[in-house]
Amino acid sequence: MIIVIKKEHEQKQLDNLVKWVKAQGVEIDTSIGSNSTVLGLIGDTSKIDIDLLRSLDIVEDVKRIQEPYKCANRKFHPDDTIVDVSGHKFGGNHFQIIAGPCSVESEKQIIYVAEKVKAAGATVLRGGAFKPRTSPYSFQGLRENGLKLLLKAKEETGMPIVTEIMSVRHIDLFKDVDIIQVGARDMQNFELLKEVGKLNKPVLLKRGLANTVEEWLMSAEYIMSEGCKDIILCERGIRTFEPYTRNTLDLSAIPLLKELTHLPVIVDPSHASGIARLVHPLSLAAVGAGAHGLMIEVHNDPPHALCDGAQSIRPEQFEDLVKNIDVMLPIVGKERDKS
Amino acid sequence: MIIVIKKEHEQKQLDNLVKWVKAQGVEIDTSIGSNSTVLGLIGDTSKIDIDLLRSLDIVEDVKRIQEPYKCANRKFHPDDTIVDVSGHKFGGNHFQIIAGPCSVESEKQIIYVAEKVKAAGATVLRGGAFKPRTSPYSFQGLRENGLKLLLKAKEETGMPIVTEIMSVRHIDLFKDVDIIQVGARDMQNFELLKEVGKLNKPVLLKRGLANTVEEWLMSAEYIMSEGCKDIILCERGIRTFEPYTRNTLDLSAIPLLKELTHLPVIVDPSHASGIARLVHPLSLAAVGAGAHGLMIEVHNDPPHALCDGAQSIRPEQFEDLVKNIDVMLPIVGKERDKS
Amino acid sequence: MIIVIKKEHEQKQLDNLVKWVKAQGVEIDTSIGSNSTVLGLIGDTSKIDIDLLRSLDIVEDVKRIQEPYKCANRKFHPDDTIVDVSGHKFGGNHFQIIAGPCSVESEKQIIYVAEKVKAAGATVLRGGAFKPRTSPYSFQGLRENGLKLLLKAKEETGMPIVTEIMSVRHIDLFKDVDIIQVGARDMQNFELLKEVGKLNKPVLLKRGLANTVEEWLMSAEYIMSEGCKDIILCERGIRTFEPYTRNTLDLSAIPLLKELTHLPVIVDPSHASGIARLVHPLSLAAVGAGAHGLMIEVHNDPPHALCDGAQSIRPEQFEDLVKNIDVMLPIVGKERDKS
Amino acid sequence: MIIVIKKEHEQKQLDNLVKWVKAQGVEIDTSIGSNSTVLGLIGDTSKIDIDLLRSLDIVEDVKRIQEPYKCANRKFHPDDTIVDVSGHKFGGNHFQIIAGPCSVESEKQIIYVAEKVKAAGATVLRGGAFKPRTSPYSFQGLRENGLKLLLKAKEETGMPIVTEIMSVRHIDLFKDVDIIQVGARDMQNFELLKEVGKLNKPVLLKRGLANTVEEWLMSAEYIMSEGCKDIILCERGIRTFEPYTRNTLDLSAIPLLKELTHLPVIVDPSHASGIARLVHPLSLAAVGAGAHGLMIEVHNDPPHALCDGAQSIRPEQFEDLVKNIDVMLPIVGKERDKS
Repeated sequence: MIIVIKKEHEQKQLDNLVKWVKAQGVEIDTSIGSNSTVLGLIGDTSKIDIDLLRSLDIVEDVKRIQEPYKCANRKFHPDDTIVDVSGHKFGGNHFQIIAGPCSVESEKQIIYVAEKVKAAGATVLRGGAFKPRTSPYSFQGLRENGLKLLLKAKEETGMPIVTEIMSVRHIDLFKDVDIIQVGARDMQNFELLKEVGKLNKPVLLKRGLANTVEEWLMSAEYIMSEGCKDIILCERGIRTFEPYTRNTLDLSAIPLLKELTHLPVIVDPSHASGIARLVHPLSLAAVGAGAHGLMIEVHNDPPHALCDGAQSIRPEQFEDLVKNIDVMLPIVGKERDKS
Repeated sequence: MIIVIKKEHEQKQLDNLVKWVKAQGVEIDTSIGSNSTVLGLIGDTSKIDIDLLRSLDIVEDVKRIQEPYKCANRKFHPDDTIVDVSGHKFGGNHFQIIAGPCSVESEKQIIYVAEKVKAAGATVLRGGAFKPRTSPYSFQGLRENGLKLLLKAKEETGMPIVTEIMSVRHIDLFKDVDIIQVGARDMQNFELLKEVGKLNKPVLLKRGLANTVEEWLMSAEYIMSEGCKDIILCERGIRTFEPYTRNTLDLSAIPLLKELTHLPVIVDPSHASGIARLVHPLSLAAVGAGAHGLMIEVHNDPPHALCDGAQSIRPEQFEDLVKNIDVMLPIVGKERDKS
Repeated sequence: MIIVIKKEHEQKQLDNLVKWVKAQGVEIDTSIGSNSTVLGLIGDTSKIDIDLLRSLDIVEDVKRIQEPYKCANRKFHPDDTIVDVSGHKFGGNHFQIIAGPCSVESEKQIIYVAEKVKAAGATVLRGGAFKPRTSPYSFQGLRENGLKLLLKAKEETGMPIVTEIMSVRHIDLFKDVDIIQVGARDMQNFELLKEVGKLNKPVLLKRGLANTVEEWLMSAEYIMSEGCKDIILCERGIRTFEPYTRNTLDLSAIPLLKELTHLPVIVDPSHASGIARLVHPLSLAAVGAGAHGLMIEVHNDPPHALCDGAQSIRPEQFEDLVKNIDVMLPIVGKERDKS
Repeated sequence: MIIVIKKEHEQKQLDNLVKWVKAQGVEIDTSIGSNSTVLGLIGDTSKIDIDLLRSLDIVEDVKRIQEPYKCANRKFHPDDTIVDVSGHKFGGNHFQIIAGPCSVESEKQIIYVAEKVKAAGATVLRGGAFKPRTSPYSFQGLRENGLKLLLKAKEETGMPIVTEIMSVRHIDLFKDVDIIQVGARDMQNFELLKEVGKLNKPVLLKRGLANTVEEWLMSAEYIMSEGCKDIILCERGIRTFEPYTRNTLDLSAIPLLKELTHLPVIVDPSHASGIARLVHPLSLAAVGAGAHGLMIEVHNDPPHALCDGAQSIRPEQFEDLVKNIDVMLPIVGKERDKS
């Protein structure tokens, strides 16, 4: 960490600062230039509050040299973490496809979709039971009931399941869920992160709508600091000024994350754009960018249904997509896990 | 609500859509142009899922005509809501100043600051007990203990208190808190909003770091739909590409909100910029923009303390600020409430 | 276009508005609901000033139904535009690779790189002569001289060239340039767009750092409205709050643009992230997203040079990349043009 | 400037880098920690290309300690610059109001508005002759003719004028314009900045829609490095995700700029929001934030005109605003210049 001191400062203030910093167990290397004095902090600075320093009268700027995350940092854990979900491996050269409907709607629907996506190559079943909705007047998911139907589908098909938790109050309901999803809006729900970190279960952590890669890794750090090692990061689009797509999928984050962290990272192309027609090209793009997997919404398609062209793609479109992915995977050195 | 239908569509799909929309209890006015067919939906469309419609194959676009919020909508409640907190009124031509330290640190500290800010003109005491921190390694607040100290300060000074809730698990601890604060990161923690809405207490709802004004009002709607009427909105800066300031204070939102909603809206200039020197000018700016009040961090200032120039301003700076605010208030037709 | 009229309005104001709108040659379909009156404008609304309407006292909101661009709109030109550059075709199922150094530095350098990238599969040579730099103290490019060296390389290798124009004053210098590049910072330099549109040459139009897809197409429209038909759009990243990468590459824009416009669209992965290590994965991602080509910075690599790991990739890395692209292209139904 | 070197690096690469940096006339202070080696560059680093350094294989990160701007930097010019426009002073404790119509439409209109705003307290007349418009089909301003009418109004009223330049081709037409405005879209039109900097005239430099404060000051630096000393900065809103307002006025930038630079900074509240009703509160907010002046659109208001409630405010509203500003100015230590 580098602390730039203002040109005009009282020596006493500087002495106080130096004393305080040293009391945090960090050494200081001072360098005096013509326009500013620079303190270089050497040692473990992860516990030093950068905002506090920045707010001091005599401080002009503070710059971090080391990343503030440790458990999630590839520097300290050079090998890829492999998250094992009932034998399906996330990370390294494994490629996994999670698929399923946006919301669990009925037993018939979830089992129908589960069988379809399993046959086409998905290894983990997704399905929303608790649904975060902008409006209190929108459908909030089948909640407890949705969870039960999802577990039924797990039993029927043998697929492990992933579904979103929205409150610490619901934790007991998730004991048979294989991967606990923390949604974008809860990425910085720190109390939830801490409790989820204690469950000894894989966690799928989505990136917040307006969160930096560093903040995302700090949220992974929250979970990991409670003992959980099995985190799957999931990029799902960030908020920008562009109105055509609901969010802007940040695929640069994929190769970047692979440098910064040892955790697997997958992509959700369905939520990012909010446009079903974009799921196919964005899935291929995610594979090209080096993702360890995809999480795709696939919808049942009974004739005469309203939502025939919904944000979710149909099972036969999903099948086509998986075939294209299979051709691409060798280029990026990955192999798709077969169920 | 306006649904624009694609030029090329099957009549059967359109008929299905029209049938489904009518089943939602809404009437349809169809208008056929050379390049598109437009359906105008007349009636209460607040329960219609705009994302679902947008995702249909035959739909080119969907545009809302009416705001999706009702309880918070000025159209349906033309008069200003006045939130009464132990006799201190938020809204209308009242102007309130909330002040206190960033974090509660000790009994001595919180009582010292409370007395100072009360003497200078603050009517409500703020102080963080549960602190949302990006890093799990940063100080997380005194938590339960912090709450107790805050209640002690309330007892000593007679000031009502406002503090942030971070988990539904802590709700019981908040029964003597006068205003429950929902922080920026929890603005879309919908399960928390619902539970807070049932407490029959005033709620201070901060705007999320990357949330639109409409989403903010929808979160107010979540709380209001559970029966709570007393919501104070608090603008605290949004995330942009500008790195000099931590966030960009969106003061245009103030006059805008006064048109869209009847709820009072205040400004937190301390968190927005993260720079103590900006608190004074941004406070005056907020008054000029028409805010119903301010929420300001004021720090104790014992000699030799490290944080003498911290993000919080000192009591004597706060006093100066209040004097300037008093000169400005008549211009904007407001009167400061005296404690 | 839909004009939503405020609930409270004077009939006379509405009559004035209706009269004015009709005078623009557009028909009106009025629909009166309980909370608002909605005017539906039928006909060519591309010349109607939406900001003007929005600013009227009686208008609550204005929503566009039709895109404001015509020449660039796929609705009116369903077939893909194929831009022919000395026999190399951009658009449709053609895939082109533009490559070359960031800046032209010397005759030896530009010819060396040109030969290398041509041998590896590039069909068009890029190279900056006029360089837009944030700082007046940074190297501004070799300017006129750089252009001459680029033309020399064209002569030596037979490759057509693309380079950026920064001022209308330089137009005469560009008469032998094959594709004129309009950079991100000039995307809304409207006077430049107009003059470039008159040159009867292909134009490569980069997306502005903070411009929407619609504004980008409107800038293409500026050029096209002067008679130019041959525009190649180039996505190069947009500005977001994420600091790790210089810009966020918006690959969702690729499949979206292919719906909205008939113009070819390519991707520049070098500028987007500013990190050389990300060029390979982001290039493959761009191919997966359906881009019609790539524009890649390739650096000469003399031993002992300072910039051995610069933002540009080295010729041998470029070769590897092209091989991977070749495996992917059949999946996306494209064929790489051979020089 | 601080260069963080990767843990794993070849000594030879580091030696090359050190040699190169020293050749730029800068000294190096090396500090070796357990996870990284840090080079501290001491001396004038304004000419060192930070992007180039960042792209080197052995470099992990580069952080600037000193601002890259010099002429515009308050550190090197502690006293406020006072820009004198025909006796009207911008900067220091002076407060100026620029007002006039969005576009010059006719001789009658511009003179009418000029007289009105002068009577109410404006000291400089604004009016668009060359208009940057997103669409080529929108009104592009009266151009040369508009300039002539503006000069006519100057003659009639004695008010100095400010108007936007859009192309280096038009420079000769601006010889009698008192302040040359460089618009938001041209903030990084570097060739234009250079030519405008040579004119020996005050320049009003608007902030780009998505430009940082640092980039803005670097653009001022471009103009100043050509000899121009008289620059007035003008904040006019930045682009964010919020759709209600056209742009988000960044008032935090005002007190920040007053620390970073000695140049005067004013605010344009009319363009920022695009909503006439917000001009009054945002103007007062700008005064509170410490702006040195305002630039306000004021519209003529003939009966029966279409645009009776346009984005511009009416002369009588402008009069009211000036009265309120006058009450506020003593609080912020400023005095309004009287014409």
